[in-house]
Amino acid sequence: MNIETIKWVNGSTGSPLGGSARIIDQTKLPNKFEYIYCRDVETMWQAIKRLSVRGAPAIGVAAAFGVLLGIQKFKGREKPEFLKLFNKTCDYLALSRPTAVNLFNMLNEMRAVVNHHPQADVAHLKKLLFKQAMIIFKTDQDVCRRMGNHGAKLIKNGMQCLTICNAGALATVDYGTALGVFYSAKRKARKFSVYACETRPLLQGARLTCWELLRHKINTTLICDNMAASLMGKGNVDIIFTGADRIASNGDTANKIGTYMLAVLARHHGIPFYIVSPRSTFDLNIKSGKQIPIEERKSEEVTHFAGVATAPKGVKVYNPAFDVTPAKLITGIVTEYGIIRPPNGKSIRRMLG
Amino acid sequence: MNIETIKWVNGSTGSPLGGSARIIDQTKLPNKFEYIYCRDVETMWQAIKRLSVRGAPAIGVAAAFGVLLGIQKFKGREKPEFLKLFNKTCDYLALSRPTAVNLFNMLNEMRAVVNHHPQADVAHLKKLLFKQAMIIFKTDQDVCRRMGNHGAKLIKNGMQCLTICNAGALATVDYGTALGVFYSAKRKARKFSVYACETRPLLQGARLTCWELLRHKINTTLICDNMAASLMGKGNVDIIFTGADRIASNGDTANKIGTYMLAVLARHHGIPFYIVSPRSTFDLNIKSGKQIPIEERKSEEVTHFAGVATAPKGVKVYNPAFDVTPAKLITGIVTEYGIIRPPNGKSIRRMLG
Repeated sequence: MNIETIKWVNGSTGSPLGGSARIIDQTKLPNKFEYIYCRDVETMWQAIKRLSVRGAPAIGVAAAFGVLLGIQKFKGREKPEFLKLFNKTCDYLALSRPTAVNLFNMLNEMRAVVNHHPQADVAHLKKLLFKQAMIIFKTDQDVCRRMGNHGAKLIKNGMQCLTICNAGALATVDYGTALGVFYSAKRKARKFSVYACETRPLLQGARLTCWELLRHKINTTLICDNMAASLMGKGNVDIIFTGADRIASNGDTANKIGTYMLAVLARHHGIPFYIVSPRSTFDLNIKSGKQIPIEERKSEEVTHFAGVATAPKGVKVYNPAFDVTPAKLITGIVTEYGIIRPPNGKSIRRMLG
Repeated sequence: MNIETIKWVNGSTGSPLGGSARIIDQTKLPNKFEYIYCRDVETMWQAIKRLSVRGAPAIGVAAAFGVLLGIQKFKGREKPEFLKLFNKTCDYLALSRPTAVNLFNMLNEMRAVVNHHPQADVAHLKKLLFKQAMIIFKTDQDVCRRMGNHGAKLIKNGMQCLTICNAGALATVDYGTALGVFYSAKRKARKFSVYACETRPLLQGARLTCWELLRHKINTTLICDNMAASLMGKGNVDIIFTGADRIASNGDTANKIGTYMLAVLARHHGIPFYIVSPRSTFDLNIKSGKQIPIEERKSEEVTHFAGVATAPKGVKVYNPAFDVTPAKLITGIVTEYGIIRPPNGKSIRRMLG
């Protein structure tokens, strides 16, 4: 049952550096379960870019591991050379994807290690950076379980829950944000069911969330994204949980495209709408969601499937990977410190500040 | 540019009966343009069932032609035998799909021909039924152009329109309901653009609507259904047009799954939401949308694409083909007689009664 989305695997050298980052290749699921071993930062960059590893918290860990991959090939002792490579590696990883702030936050944590140890030599810095990456890894495991416990309190027996995309073990190290809430509720023997929105265009809901939830024997029904409204209209959705890719200081939340749709529909139908997200997904440097850069991806994701064209040649496509849900449509944000409810500048500062 | 979705093609016998119904096989579009020649009612039934011909008005014409296909093999003169075959054919066609009322309304028109001519012999009835089927065919052509002209008045220069599924030439004989509005606006040299929702699971928006609109050189952008809310939130949608599969006497409207989603989102964003639908899609025998039977289709439509699994084996699927939009969320219904605005029991009776 345990899913290890991303893990540092030591090499044969005995030294922790000289290893590789092992990730589940999520582009192949659910039909094939395969690992990718990233032995250099370029492989990790590509894995992030093409969504072999995805989900804001997992991308954060992937970035930290990516830094290790970038610096481990440095064999010298000259610190300026080392720092040049380190900074180049961080800058490079920062260009892999633009929206999930965990990527930048975790790169900043790695940079802080260097900044806080101006006297350290190369060997020492390598050790410190390795240690920090492992802290980032373990923190994610811990934080997800804490969010799960807070969120599980919201799930009552008999509830029909709904989620979009994959905010599960596959979006984190091994537990999940929104799906972590379901796993914690299941451990508490709560009886509930889940509707999973398939999440076009890349079907993370159908491919990944259904796969995870079935492994956990959670009562799961797959729907197309355009069916969520109909379910709500029939009274078949009691509560909605989604993950997040970046939360502004006022609570505006960027998440997978379709999340804003769910939030508007939830408001219309009087259904509570929760974001489940760790501190590491908050971007307190920006005032509102308007400042969140939204990744637009290539049109082929929409116009083709499995190599087959699903639209006529030459049609224009708009393919944003994320949308922004204004804080006023969010009932609460489940964090590792508790539930911020309702989310706004003040309540967020109080919980996280 | 002209698209002939469904057409009666005379046979070599010289007699109108003894022909076949030629339909475009819409399951193959946009990659292949192929006709199916239905020479018996079973072939037509299958074509309706698997959506080779779809769209409420086109299904109505297909049903009328299906009746012709059923009776043309009758070579005798015994009227009771003929009526038995006629009724069996109508009953059989009525089981092909449950939601679009045009199917039942057009079968009733064919039945009315028989009922109104109790003295007619078999040969005469055959002629009358053939004539009625051709009236149904030509009425659709006429009615769509009239709706287009009424609806085109709603489109102003610079407008960004949005639609879902295919309510175009491919959903009618050759012009369309919602897309007919765009064609009429284009003829009036109105400048506007269209966002087409891809319409999961069978992608009629991506496959059919984009194909049609590109042929008409209309500025078209394809989106996934879950992106419509984001576009609206950004102020990029000025007006929405959709077709209908059945409209109750109070204005509640069944249409392709996702339509209700658009209507709720439109209300939230203050965007006018119009249904474009002929008289033949109204079911004045039912009080409200609660009485409209909603077709649920097989789970493979959601879990597979082009033979490739997109979800794990064994996951439950909810796959309704339609949803019901309450009249109160509909700005107006564009009919061949004019625009019913706002739609309710009284305004509908006044326009159609």
